[in-house]
Amino acid sequence: MPEPLLSNRPSSELSNDRDIAEEDALLTGQPTDKSAPTARSRSWRVWREIGLFVWAVLATALVVILAVVYQKSVDKPSGSPRPSGKRNLIFMVSDGMGPTSLSLTRSYKQFENGLPFSEQLVIDQHLIGQSRTRSSSSLITDSAAGATAFSCGMKSYNGAISVTPDHEPCGTVLEAAKKAGYMTGLVVTTRITDATPACFAAHVNNRLEEDLIAQQMVGEYPLGRVVDLMFGGGRCHFLANGTDGSCRADDRDIVAVAKKNGFNYLDSRKSFDDLKGGKNIKFPILGLFAETDIPYEIDRRNENDIYPSLHEMAEAAMIALSEATKASEKGFFLMIEGSRIDHAGHHNDPAAQVHEVLAYDKAIDSVLNFLENDSTQGVMVSTSDHETGGLATARQLHATYPEYVWYPGPLANASHSAERLDLEYQKFMFSAPDASPDKITDFVKSSISEGLGIEDMSSDEVTNLVKDPSTALYQYADMISRRSQSGWSTHGHSAADVNIYSSDPKAAMPLVGNHENTEVGDFLREYLGVDVDAVTKELKEKGVKLMGADGVGWMGPVPEAGQRLDGQTHLASYGGDYRKRHLNHGRGCDCGH
Amino acid sequence: MPEPLLSNRPSSELSNDRDIAEEDALLTGQPTDKSAPTARSRSWRVWREIGLFVWAVLATALVVILAVVYQKSVDKPSGSPRPSGKRNLIFMVSDGMGPTSLSLTRSYKQFENGLPFSEQLVIDQHLIGQSRTRSSSSLITDSAAGATAFSCGMKSYNGAISVTPDHEPCGTVLEAAKKAGYMTGLVVTTRITDATPACFAAHVNNRLEEDLIAQQMVGEYPLGRVVDLMFGGGRCHFLANGTDGSCRADDRDIVAVAKKNGFNYLDSRKSFDDLKGGKNIKFPILGLFAETDIPYEIDRRNENDIYPSLHEMAEAAMIALSEATKASEKGFFLMIEGSRIDHAGHHNDPAAQVHEVLAYDKAIDSVLNFLENDSTQGVMVSTSDHETGGLATARQLHATYPEYVWYPGPLANASHSAERLDLEYQKFMFSAPDASPDKITDFVKSSISEGLGIEDMSSDEVTNLVKDPSTALYQYADMISRRSQSGWSTHGHSAADVNIYSSDPKAAMPLVGNHENTEVGDFLREYLGVDVDAVTKELKEKGVKLMGADGVGWMGPVPEAGQRLDGQTHLASYGGDYRKRHLNHGRGCDCGH
Repeated sequence: MPEPLLSNRPSSELSNDRDIAEEDALLTGQPTDKSAPTARSRSWRVWREIGLFVWAVLATALVVILAVVYQKSVDKPSGSPRPSGKRNLIFMVSDGMGPTSLSLTRSYKQFENGLPFSEQLVIDQHLIGQSRTRSSSSLITDSAAGATAFSCGMKSYNGAISVTPDHEPCGTVLEAAKKAGYMTGLVVTTRITDATPACFAAHVNNRLEEDLIAQQMVGEYPLGRVVDLMFGGGRCHFLANGTDGSCRADDRDIVAVAKKNGFNYLDSRKSFDDLKGGKNIKFPILGLFAETDIPYEIDRRNENDIYPSLHEMAEAAMIALSEATKASEKGFFLMIEGSRIDHAGHHNDPAAQVHEVLAYDKAIDSVLNFLENDSTQGVMVSTSDHETGGLATARQLHATYPEYVWYPGPLANASHSAERLDLEYQKFMFSAPDASPDKITDFVKSSISEGLGIEDMSSDEVTNLVKDPSTALYQYADMISRRSQSGWSTHGHSAADVNIYSSDPKAAMPLVGNHENTEVGDFLREYLGVDVDAVTKELKEKGVKLMGADGVGWMGPVPEAGQRLDGQTHLASYGGDYRKRHLNHGRGCDCGH
Repeated sequence: MPEPLLSNRPSSELSNDRDIAEEDALLTGQPTDKSAPTARSRSWRVWREIGLFVWAVLATALVVILAVVYQKSVDKPSGSPRPSGKRNLIFMVSDGMGPTSLSLTRSYKQFENGLPFSEQLVIDQHLIGQSRTRSSSSLITDSAAGATAFSCGMKSYNGAISVTPDHEPCGTVLEAAKKAGYMTGLVVTTRITDATPACFAAHVNNRLEEDLIAQQMVGEYPLGRVVDLMFGGGRCHFLANGTDGSCRADDRDIVAVAKKNGFNYLDSRKSFDDLKGGKNIKFPILGLFAETDIPYEIDRRNENDIYPSLHEMAEAAMIALSEATKASEKGFFLMIEGSRIDHAGHHNDPAAQVHEVLAYDKAIDSVLNFLENDSTQGVMVSTSDHETGGLATARQLHATYPEYVWYPGPLANASHSAERLDLEYQKFMFSAPDASPDKITDFVKSSISEGLGIEDMSSDEVTNLVKDPSTALYQYADMISRRSQSGWSTHGHSAADVNIYSSDPKAAMPLVGNHENTEVGDFLREYLGVDVDAVTKELKEKGVKLMGADGVGWMGPVPEAGQRLDGQTHLASYGGDYRKRHLNHGRGCDCGH
């Protein structure tokens, strides 16, 4: 008799062990065992029943647990437990970029390319929060205290390069990463000895001690060499006083020190190109592509690319570090800075600024592409140390009630930065000290029309430039700002909260929302899972035996009471590389001391 | 024989039906049935086993499903499907508050209360994104185009009160909410006829037509009455020309129209207090507590609370709307505006601004508390329409390189707004037109020292105030700004992105990150699940039959070509209620036309 389907069989028909055994077969898929003794089959049945019951209870319990866990994950965006496994961290700093820089640049990009207003920058699509930026000494931070918050995760005074307010060294995330087996890199467009990069691999009481910073960054300090890759400007601090292109106060050759410590040294576009986009790098590597700062993006493009761009350097660094850590259990930590957004803010030059922000946006895009295609897990976090200039996309030009407009057009017309035009003007005056007023006027007019693209210059504007060449930088910048109706409140920094972006809001969950800048530092070390305190201890222990040649501690002199630590002491340190190469008189490079 | 524990009983002992029945009893908690026939007990056993199996399989399937769902929720922050069930939406607008207003106010609060720098504002803890604010006519929006983006979810021209660039009406989220059965409310500190509130319940081609807006808001327009609760200022537009306290151009009594349409009308602090915090409200209700704007918070506190505060009005509105919708399937839509943060920006008065932002923060706190304790689900979303003033917490005061500091102290010393001191000064000059220069000087000096708390006034500052009373407003504000080193770029608006906050980032997921302001409008209608397009259709159909008495359409005259739509045409409309009550000469209230 064929077995009907279970549902067709009234329960009363199941009356013997054979039926039960067949029932077992239906349930378990096992053939029936007709020869099994009744007692054994009963016992098996009971245990099977118990097993089923345990299964059901366990599964139900799991349902309850999962439901609770799910509810929790729904109630609150899941925090990021410290990630496990190999991983890369790319930390990007947009020095001096406040929230307004973004709306300025976005509208400029839309205007210049005929894009609809819905078109965003790449970075716009990754906003996750904001950072509060004050330092321990002021409501307005400088880049040194700002970067110390990132590198050490603590507040310090303006001017501090990873030292505490008590002038003790504090271990940095880069140093701790190196100790933990990560590879490390720094990519900037300013001097590699400038505050932001310095804070990751040096400890100095005064940011102005860039000669000392240069020494430390190539390994002349308690921890030895900790950086595997450095790309940027600032060559002059590595060259001995008296040699061509030096701005060091002493005659030490820091390039030689770097080479002794194993660094491969590059100083030209050609040598950068020879790296083949990062595929041909030998570590450690030190690439100093400009004597001081790498020129503004708006000017760099006019120089036949004799300097690598930020995104070119970033891409080479990522590819090389990725390849070099291929076989390692640890990934890499890389800091990439769009350094000169800040300088354009100091100069109050909106045309220079939009191109710096666009260059940074391009680097962001490169990093996102890298992370998307890389097999190792990784995260990008981007923020600024502070806002610079008090930029407003609005300006009160008239006594009447202000119109609600600003104009991107004048920014699009400019082909040079105010800095570059100023330097050209100084160069002209230097090369023709006896030029007649007419000749100077002609020069100024042509610099305005050709450099700034301004055809409606007023005679006052021209006269003032001829009369006072010493403020030409600000005069040129103001001509662009007034025509575009860009407002500025200061040539220094401001206290505005700055934005935080990430490639992965989940991995960067601790930074979603509004946070103190030190929390950015906390995140960096926690993501990598590295012990910064151990580094602090080692720095203190080893450092105590070190003394500089001049009798001061290894971290250089503590700033004197009268020294201006709530700001840089001079604007000249924001001069570009161009000036240094052409001028040797009074307004030349004093970027060292 | 006592039953031993399951685990103590070898399986071979379980050899008869009684044992199995007892096993059942242990498993199910049911007493054994010794009299049951063997066949029935076997059949029951088999079905029980099948039941267990089904339970286990179902539970396991649920585990798998839950695990997948959980994984999905972890992989990606859960998007917000349109919520279901009864719900409330509280939309808050911080008019003119840019990102810098927050760092200014936060540092002020820390300074004033001796709090550590880690202390945040309430609103800081709810940051979820930023909004891009441009209008269809300019990169810099006004509040009308800004609020139209929120109410209609579309870009329009500066000056547009919920009309398209083609001067067609566009349905608003409040109107659609009313149609769908929600209750609706508007709470502001400016005139209820000002751009932001007007955009939710009126359609006018030119924001300056506040008389027309008043009529529409009480129901004289195609849809009839749509607002259930209005609290704010702007009484003068509702009173017939010729009656005390009116600023209407015509002699229509709009309070009478409101009453005819069912409104309960309040116009005093006492009548507000009689509402008993919202427990004693009869709907619909129109509360106009000031002739024009409600005074700045910094001044309001000096007035023995003759005006309700923003958070008092907000709390009463929430409690009343909640109570009134208790038995309904639909909740409420409430818009709450911190209206005069914007005015403090226009005046470039940082002392007035910090108190406006703190008052807004207090209202945020009230809303969060309400939502936390209310049994109906709800969400708060807060954003600004634009930034005002180009505020920077930094200011270049000297030709030398700027110090990196700003000082909250001068803001803490001020007990009055520049607006109030200006009005007092005008009142003094009006009441004593023949006052000697010495007497004017004395008055000015005392206003500076008592009103602004400034003791180090320069003789130039005093002389200029005496010499030019017409710009006293800006002169007073500038004295505070210079001493605190607060920078401003304009007396108008700027194009900076503004922050978005929410009580519930999950519910407001579409607004997490950087968004166009129209996406805020999209969110509002989607959260409520209301049909705005149907309202647009109805407005067009019904409106076509309406014509104003003067022959123009029901939405008022289209602005003439020469009319300044990229900005308000005069600063005077930002004057406070105080001036209106004391002055009737040239600089008096011209808030109407």
